[in-house]
Formats: sequence, structure tokens, C-alpha cells
Amino acid sequence: MTFRDDGHAAVDWAADYLERVGELPVLAQVRPGDIRARLPQSPPEQGEPFEAVLRDLDEILMPGMTHWQHPRFFAYFAVTGSEPGILAELLAATLNSVAILWRTAPASTELEVTVLDWVAQLIGIPRGWHGHIEDTASTSTLAALIAARHTTGRNVVVCSEHAHSSVEKDARMLGLEVRKAPVDDAFRMRADALELDDVAAVVATVGTTSTTSVDPVAPIAERCASAGAWLHVDAAYAGSAMVCPELRWAFQGVERADSLVVNAHKWMFTPMDCSLLWTSRPDDFRAAFALVPEYLRTTDEAAFNISEYGPALGRRFRSLKLWAVLRCYGREGLQSRIREAVRLAELFEGWVRDEPGWEVCAPRPFSVVCFRREGSDEENEAILERVNSSGEIFISHTKLNGGYVLRLAIGSERTTEDDVCRAWAVLRDGG
Amino acid sequence: MTFRDDGHAAVDWAADYLERVGELPVLAQVRPGDIRARLPQSPPEQGEPFEAVLRDLDEILMPGMTHWQHPRFFAYFAVTGSEPGILAELLAATLNSVAILWRTAPASTELEVTVLDWVAQLIGIPRGWHGHIEDTASTSTLAALIAARHTTGRNVVVCSEHAHSSVEKDARMLGLEVRKAPVDDAFRMRADALELDDVAAVVATVGTTSTTSVDPVAPIAERCASAGAWLHVDAAYAGSAMVCPELRWAFQGVERADSLVVNAHKWMFTPMDCSLLWTSRPDDFRAAFALVPEYLRTTDEAAFNISEYGPALGRRFRSLKLWAVLRCYGREGLQSRIREAVRLAELFEGWVRDEPGWEVCAPRPFSVVCFRREGSDEENEAILERVNSSGEIFISHTKLNGGYVLRLAIGSERTTEDDVCRAWAVLRDGG
Repeated sequence: MTFRDDGHAAVDWAADYLERVGELPVLAQVRPGDIRARLPQSPPEQGEPFEAVLRDLDEILMPGMTHWQHPRFFAYFAVTGSEPGILAELLAATLNSVAILWRTAPASTELEVTVLDWVAQLIGIPRGWHGHIEDTASTSTLAALIAARHTTGRNVVVCSEHAHSSVEKDARMLGLEVRKAPVDDAFRMRADALELDDVAAVVATVGTTSTTSVDPVAPIAERCASAGAWLHVDAAYAGSAMVCPELRWAFQGVERADSLVVNAHKWMFTPMDCSLLWTSRPDDFRAAFALVPEYLRTTDEAAFNISEYGPALGRRFRSLKLWAVLRCYGREGLQSRIREAVRLAELFEGWVRDEPGWEVCAPRPFSVVCFRREGSDEENEAILERVNSSGEIFISHTKLNGGYVLRLAIGSERTTEDDVCRAWAVLRDGG
Repeated sequence: MTFRDDGHAAVDWAADYLERVGELPVLAQVRPGDIRARLPQSPPEQGEPFEAVLRDLDEILMPGMTHWQHPRFFAYFAVTGSEPGILAELLAATLNSVAILWRTAPASTELEVTVLDWVAQLIGIPRGWHGHIEDTASTSTLAALIAARHTTGRNVVVCSEHAHSSVEKDARMLGLEVRKAPVDDAFRMRADALELDDVAAVVATVGTTSTTSVDPVAPIAERCASAGAWLHVDAAYAGSAMVCPELRWAFQGVERADSLVVNAHKWMFTPMDCSLLWTSRPDDFRAAFALVPEYLRTTDEAAFNISEYGPALGRRFRSLKLWAVLRCYGREGLQSRIREAVRLAELFEGWVRDEPGWEVCAPRPFSVVCFRREGSDEENEAILERVNSSGEIFISHTKLNGGYVLRLAIGSERTTEDDVCRAWAVLRDGG
């Protein structure tokens, strides 16, 4: 078999998978160790044809897949690996470009800054910010905190208890101290309660992980400016929604941020991994990260190297998939998909609200609903385990004010109103 | 057009590209800004068909590609995005799995530890080490330094001046001090000159970036053990070559390391990005990185989460491509390709050595030759610029003992003896 034949077989596998993924159990129905036990303990001596890989993908690995492309994946933040994004990953792997320097990948470097400018326009970031792609928000926030420490010379990070766990993890990795700022009754950071005298960075979240609450960026920015603290905005989830003008209220004040992360692999229909990191202070980023050893010096005077703005040196051609998504969806395509997810979440929220014995537990700014059945935490946890083990839907949970809360996140473009109806039916029956 | 049709078109594009890449100029023949100027300044309003992406990939982006898949790419470390690896990336993007926890991606999690065990067996790492995948060696080394600081409570990193620039960059990111250990006349770290009393970690390199010299790991490990310093071995390039028993001498002492990085995307025929990080001290890694917030707590008792062993939370399904490569190549396929690259490098080294007016500038343990033409640094730099701008070959350079040295790295499985002949002809003519 040639690469061409194997490739056509792989595309057929992919197309078949996407057609039937909704019929599979969304959460893998295996126990820890099951998949490993079915894999050989040693590598093969001789090579095998690629069709053996496709066969074992079906026979060995598929039972161990939790299907993130399933239309009834409602856990964490539901995502979409869209079709243009998937095919662009094939192309990126084919080119196998490594952008350590402009010279080693001019198209990759220049496409990356261009599409980051495109997204900046789509979601309302001021012109002139420098944007590049990291793998995940953990890395984007890590980079921002490194730049913040380098710039301010301080060692304290402030966020609310609703900030993503990566803030605390990043701070621990860097040896920074984390202080938790208080929140109001809608889980938003209280700008008036911030004490920032010795603070390197404040991480404000637009769309927190638990409830998608929106920290008030404008007054937080005001406080940061007075105190000389760096303001990093984590809009990993909700940033993509800013393509819709009616949701843009959540970005009020973002123009005053020092850095901002939006994960295109969360709600911009781009396959993992594609975390977009912008800064209004590119020189401070460069001061923190630029280091060009002799073997990388080139004579391309006007060139710029994205590796000088973040932790990694080698960079794969991630911008290609984002470009493909933006080209194939356009602003209108993004808007209509975001609006549909928000509409479906609003619908589900209404059903919960109207159902005796169930309650909505937090405001719903976007496409995530926090809810619970009246009763104990244990009863709600049991509901979650039952519905997830059914394979019909996959939801996750959080804790709010100490209580166990169920979470339904809508984000896949494959999710229809029927899927949300079915989720609600499964939950009511399972509860 | 459906996804299936677009996918077949993308596969044909990829197959055509790999067939003709050797006919293209290997180094992009554009100036900084050229590609960006040909891209629209704003994103599209309406979506377009995927064929428009393929068309503009050809018309706009291809002139700005430096072709890492070109058989006469001899710069930095030449790599191969092999055919099974490319197709596995298509499949990984299709599945779009996000391994934040075991439960969210059991197959991805368990395949990752399994294939890391396979590679450990292939290259002679002791049984029982914990392995996982990071994006690049910059991140793998960053993770190792974080674990080292967390474990030792110290803040100094030691490496030689020939260590990869990422060691210095990682240390700067973490606020660690770097001390450079002296090297011998073959560019190897001098174990006898190490002073490690207050040192958190020593980074020893097996296959340095400039000359692929091999730091003597065994005596360095001895010194680290006495001083309580963490030993991280950077075998990003040469680690893959350990699949050949006749090259395994370079790993002597590695069994005493605390952590080890090998980039499968360098010389294990896997597309970017796939940096393999093992540790003999998994509990220390976990102590440095584990942090499980409420919304990620699950009841899978026996499960383990790879995100607790490194910086990132979200993880894409990178193990799939490495599995595909190992399955389709087998131990024998890896060995034959590594041996062919070493043979070609040895051949080239002989031609340089035998040619009056040219000299080899460093020992050649693997597949990289450091050489120069007699004459000034400027003359050698001019040779590099001329041959690279011809588009026939792409080589890079380094400095050794203050002098400008040319570097020819062989690593692509597509490189034939004819390609190396042509490189030598171009260099002699260009010189």
C-alpha cells in the first residue's frame, strides 16, 4: 500500500467515525488498566502495514475512547474539532514544519501573526497587540506570569477561587505565591477588595471554569494600573464568544489588559491544541523570553521569531488549522454556531428552572448551565455517576459554596436541540 | 463537498507534496513580510469551501515554506514526518481527545504510557521509569528543572556551554541561576570539574546541538549522587539512535539519571510535536505537578492522570502517531533508518576530510558533521549564505572555539546518497 492508499483509508475511517460517533457511548465504558492490558507489552520487531494500525485503533483503542466529538459530550467545556481543522492538521503534519526561527518557517510564522490579528479583530482586541499560539492555556498563562514577574520584579499572583487551576499550578511551578481574591454572590472577583501593592499579576477570568462567571475586567484593570501589577485575562473558554456583539459586554476593560488568552480549541472549532495568547506589551514578553544562541543567528534583518515571545523554541504549524477554520466558517459561521450553543443552553436552563425539584445554581452568561436536584450532595453525585455510566451523555460537576453542583456545557457544533432534550430526559430519569 | 471528499482531496495534496518536495527549493526564497503581504488583513465574513484553503495553501503559503520534509534539508537536526505519523495525526485530530484526566481519555492515557514503555525498551532505559509526552524538549527540560527545584530546594542549574539553549531559557523562566561547566577538547562536559554543593540539577547532553558530542553521563551521575543534585539527561536528538546497540555506548550511566528527554519528532520519524520525558522518580514529579481541583475529581480509584506529571492540563492524543510509527517501522525499521543516516554522515565526513582546503571540526558520533573551508569566518559564512540561497540544500552553522563552522545534519529518511553527493558538490562549488 502506498501513502496515498493508506491516506484514503484513513480519511474514510475519519469520515465514518464522525458519522457514527453519536451512536457510541460518550464516556468510555472501561476500567483503569483495561486498554493497557490489551496492548502488547513490547514493541514490534518488524514493521506492519498501516492497515494494522487502523484495525487495532478500532479493536483495541476505540472501547477506551471518551468521545469529545460526540454530540452529547456536555462535560468540562464541550469542544469541536471541525472538519476544516481536522484536515488542516493532516496538512500541517505533512509539511512537518518546525518554526524555531522565521527562516525555518516563514509561512508558518507570518500566517500565525496574521490569523491572530484576524481573531483579534473578530473578538474586539485593540489593533497592534502581538499574538501567537501556545499549546494550552496552562502554557499561555505560564508565559504571561513569567513576563509579569520579569517586568515587575514581584512574586505574588492574585486570582479568585474560581480561576482555572492552571493559575495555581503555574504559580507553583514558578515559585510564585498565590493569593485568592474574594468574589461576589455571582462568583465574580471583587475589584474593590483587591490589595495589589506587592503583586506581580492579577489573573482575571472571563468565563470561569465552574460557572463561566465574568470577572469585572474594567475596574480590575484600574486597580492594576494604580498598583503597577500586570493584568492577565483568562478568556480561554468565553473569548471565542466575543465574536458575537451581543456578548461583547464581557470584554469590557480588556483593552487595558497586559495579556490575554483565548483557546481556539475550546469554542473556536479548532482541534486541540491551539491556545491564543496576545499581549499589549510585546517588548516585555521579548525581554523575558528572547535568547538566540549562535547556531540560530541568521542574517534576516527584518525577520521576527515567535520563539522569542514564549517558552518553546520548536513550534509546529498550528496556525494552519485556525486559518482553515476561519476561512471555512467566516465571521458569520462562527457567530451562528456560538449563538446556537447559547440558545441551547438557555433552553436547557429553562427546563431545569421550570421543573419542580430541580434548581439552577448560578447565572448563565454563555453556554454552561450549573444546576442540581434538590437533595443531598451524595444524591447529586449519584445522578452524575448514573447518567455518565449510561453512555448516553457525559456531564461534569463542580462545587459552589461548598455544595455539589452538576454542570452541562454546550459547545460542540454537532450538538442539536434533540441532543439537549435527550440529556434532560436522561437526567430527569436518572435523578 | 463533504468531509469525505475534502479529505480525499487533502490526502491527494499531501501525497503529491511528498512526491515532489525534493524538486522545491528547500529554503524558502522569500523576504520577511512577503507572505503576510499576500494574506488578507481581515478575516472573511462568510465561509468558503475547503478547496479554497488548498488553493491558497499552494498559491500563497507554499512559496514561504522551508521544506523540512525535503531530502536535502541538512540544517539544525534534520527530521522526518513519516507517513504513518502523518496519518495518525489526521486520526488524532478527528478524535480530538483531550486527556485532562484518565476518564476523559483512557485510551490516550494508557497508550501513552505503553508506547513510552516500548521506546524505553528500544533505547535501553531501565524498566519501571514513568514516561509521558510533552510538546518540545524546552518543555520537557522545564518540567525536569521544576521537579528538581521542588525536590532539592536549590536554585542552581549546571550545564556545559554546549547544552541546548532551552536549558538557559528554562532556567531564566524559573528564576534559576545557570552555571556553565567546562568541556574537554571534544566538547564534552568535564565531570571532574563539577562543583555541585548547592546545585539543584545538572543537565548532561547526549548529542549536543552544535557537534552532537556526548557528555560522560556515568561520572556525572556519580558526582550528582554525591552532591544530592538531580541529573537530567537531554538526549533530544541522539536518544533515538540508542535503538542501535552499536551506538548504545552513549547512554552509559543513563540508568542513574533522574529524568531523560528524547524527541521522537527529531530522529524517531514522528511528526512535530512529540518530546518523550521519562523519570526514575515519578513521585517527585507528582509532588511538583499534581493539583486536582474539585471539578476534576473523579471516582476512578485506580486511574492515573498524566497531567499530574507535567505542566499542561489539557493533552492532545500525541501517542497515536508514535504508536503508528513504532507499529509500521518496528525495531528493525528504526535501526535501518538510523544506520543509513549515520552511514551517509560518515561518507560525507570522509569526502570533507579527503578534500584539500576543507576540514572536519569535531568528532562525529552520529549523523552530524561539523566542517569548514580553510579561510576566514566571513568566507565560511558567505558559503553558507550562497548554498542556502541556491535552494538546493539547507545547512546551518555553529561556532566552535570562537570560529565559524558549517554543520550538515542527516536525519530525514528521504535523504539518499545522491542527495548527500549533491550537497557536497554544491558546497565545493559554492566555496
